[in-house]
Amino acid sequence: MPDTHTPDERLARAAWSRLTEPGDPHAGATLASLGAVDALAWLRASARRPEQLPRSQRACVERWAPRLEGLEPERDVAAFSRLGGRVVIPGDPEWPEALADLGPAAPHALWVRGAGHVPGSAGVPGGIAMVGSRASTRYGETVARELAFGIADAGYRIISGGAYGIDAAAHRGALAATPEGTVAVLAGGADRLYPAGNEAMLRSITEGGLVIAELAPGASPTRHRFLARNRVIAALGAATVVVEAAHRSGALSTANHAADLLRPLGAVPGPVTSAASSGCHRLLREGKAVCVTMVEEVLELAGPAGVFGAEPEVEPGLLDGLDPLESRVFDALPAHVGAEVSSLVRASGLGIAEVLGALGSLQIAGRVRRSGDRWARVTS
Amino acid sequence: MPDTHTPDERLARAAWSRLTEPGDPHAGATLASLGAVDALAWLRASARRPEQLPRSQRACVERWAPRLEGLEPERDVAAFSRLGGRVVIPGDPEWPEALADLGPAAPHALWVRGAGHVPGSAGVPGGIAMVGSRASTRYGETVARELAFGIADAGYRIISGGAYGIDAAAHRGALAATPEGTVAVLAGGADRLYPAGNEAMLRSITEGGLVIAELAPGASPTRHRFLARNRVIAALGAATVVVEAAHRSGALSTANHAADLLRPLGAVPGPVTSAASSGCHRLLREGKAVCVTMVEEVLELAGPAGVFGAEPEVEPGLLDGLDPLESRVFDALPAHVGAEVSSLVRASGLGIAEVLGALGSLQIAGRVRRSGDRWARVTS
Repeated sequence: MPDTHTPDERLARAAWSRLTEPGDPHAGATLASLGAVDALAWLRASARRPEQLPRSQRACVERWAPRLEGLEPERDVAAFSRLGGRVVIPGDPEWPEALADLGPAAPHALWVRGAGHVPGSAGVPGGIAMVGSRASTRYGETVARELAFGIADAGYRIISGGAYGIDAAAHRGALAATPEGTVAVLAGGADRLYPAGNEAMLRSITEGGLVIAELAPGASPTRHRFLARNRVIAALGAATVVVEAAHRSGALSTANHAADLLRPLGAVPGPVTSAASSGCHRLLREGKAVCVTMVEEVLELAGPAGVFGAEPEVEPGLLDGLDPLESRVFDALPAHVGAEVSSLVRASGLGIAEVLGALGSLQIAGRVRRSGDRWARVTS
Repeated sequence: MPDTHTPDERLARAAWSRLTEPGDPHAGATLASLGAVDALAWLRASARRPEQLPRSQRACVERWAPRLEGLEPERDVAAFSRLGGRVVIPGDPEWPEALADLGPAAPHALWVRGAGHVPGSAGVPGGIAMVGSRASTRYGETVARELAFGIADAGYRIISGGAYGIDAAAHRGALAATPEGTVAVLAGGADRLYPAGNEAMLRSITEGGLVIAELAPGASPTRHRFLARNRVIAALGAATVVVEAAHRSGALSTANHAADLLRPLGAVPGPVTSAASSGCHRLLREGKAVCVTMVEEVLELAGPAGVFGAEPEVEPGLLDGLDPLESRVFDALPAHVGAEVSSLVRASGLGIAEVLGALGSLQIAGRVRRSGDRWARVTS
């Protein structure tokens, strides 16, 4: 990741999430090598003289440049912020490092509505991805709801796709345990609570949980975007559980992504007489998935902590008593060494005035100290 | 196996199947080293002066000798023969070589009622062991019946324990496909068709299939004998399939025997809300069993042929037109070399007069020829 984490970087990544289709590895590689700001400038310049480009770059520019027209990331971000949303980008404390496993196909940014940190960020308890068929049976819905309830009750969030059937049963089971219990990753823009029949449920998820999209607001959920979205669900989950899936269910694409990402994969068995369970049975038969039948087995699958990263960077209680700005700046300070203000600006995603203000109040509270032009945590 | 295959050996093994409890490895080791006839003589002699024995042998003699009283294997064999039964011992063409995998815990003899060869003998299509809970659900019984029907219809026999629940459903499904379709291995004597509620079914199994016991007639099925019987079911099966099993079901003991014997093991999943499937789900979860949901998957589990031994010794049609005695003698002849009468007596388990009579009629039919004192098959 280039070290270019400025407010402009956030806007540029917001722009890129509108310019490209999700999972475009050429876009990811371009942003990784140039940074989003310079990549955007390069795209604008290239769009004016595509004939001077090498053939490989030209194909990309021809794909991305048409969406430059009418591009106004400031307006997108402002409108999304009026919905209570925020744009989270790599380098933000709540950026889920787990997405790095997607390589250049990782999202450029996440459009996030709701409370709490995104699952998969360092030190934050992981979530369990739970997916399944839209054409579910009462058996599958009951199992999804009860497993999700128990998992959320144990403190892990349920990540799913907001769809009808198993997705909705999983979200609802988690919501019944706690308002913070679930995360919906949408295939279109996060401003649109799709599908319409689940709008009320998705709205209540934004109240305590999170609704996330990698596409800019207004984007419609196409078939390609549904399939691409599944990689994000799989990557955000500390483990993925398939509750019901027929032989060609989209839930199997999430399962395959989880397997490709070396995430633990579980499948809930069902009657062999039910076509809705045939995809789960195939995953079991092929040894791709572990058989899970109860909450404890799902949590065992996710590992002892369900937390990404062996050493949480944020110790429990470390941010107690800090306001959000102070938390983000403190969080951006390395655990053991000092950092310059410019580096904190990049790492926190805040403006320089905000960082200086937060450092001042943290210093008064005795939580940070200054040494030359470097700031460091006060360790107790 | 010592080369002492005489009529006396058969009677002695019949005696040993009454003297010891099934699966006693000390008895198996004693018979393997002395032969059943000499082992019986040793036991009789030792029983008269146990104080002169080393401590380890003394414990065995004290366990086996009490049953010498009233021992009359000739009477047992004759009575069993009036039921249409026969005693099969190691070295007989229909002795299942598959039992050798049980080592010294293998049965001393099999008391067999019914038609056809015992599954697990060389060149005979293997059977599929199908077991499950007595406390089965309608779901489990339906699945067992349909799988067993399809497996028997494909030419493989279903081996089970004759019990209520899944065992009975499996036997009945196989019987519905073909009268030869199934084999019941009982925990008590094969003269007793136990349990009483399944007597009619077991009787109809003896008409086309087989009812087998390792204990002598009259033996009652104790709990220990049920558990020991499960190792025989697992060993005779080219694969074992568990249809329904609660957490402490006896069917899991069969599954564990199959796993210990390195036999392929399948488990049929069911609703996670059903306690009757919990044992199957545990087998899947622990990776002990493969998930099987249909006939093709069970047959795949058993391997391409489901046959023990790479080269079947009996070609299809080879025994056509022969009566039972002729068949057994012809079958006892090696495929490519000649054999002496004394060797055929041992291999066929028949008396010398029966062997000579059969060889005479086979010679008239042009199926065997004599060369010096050796007899050989006539190859067409």
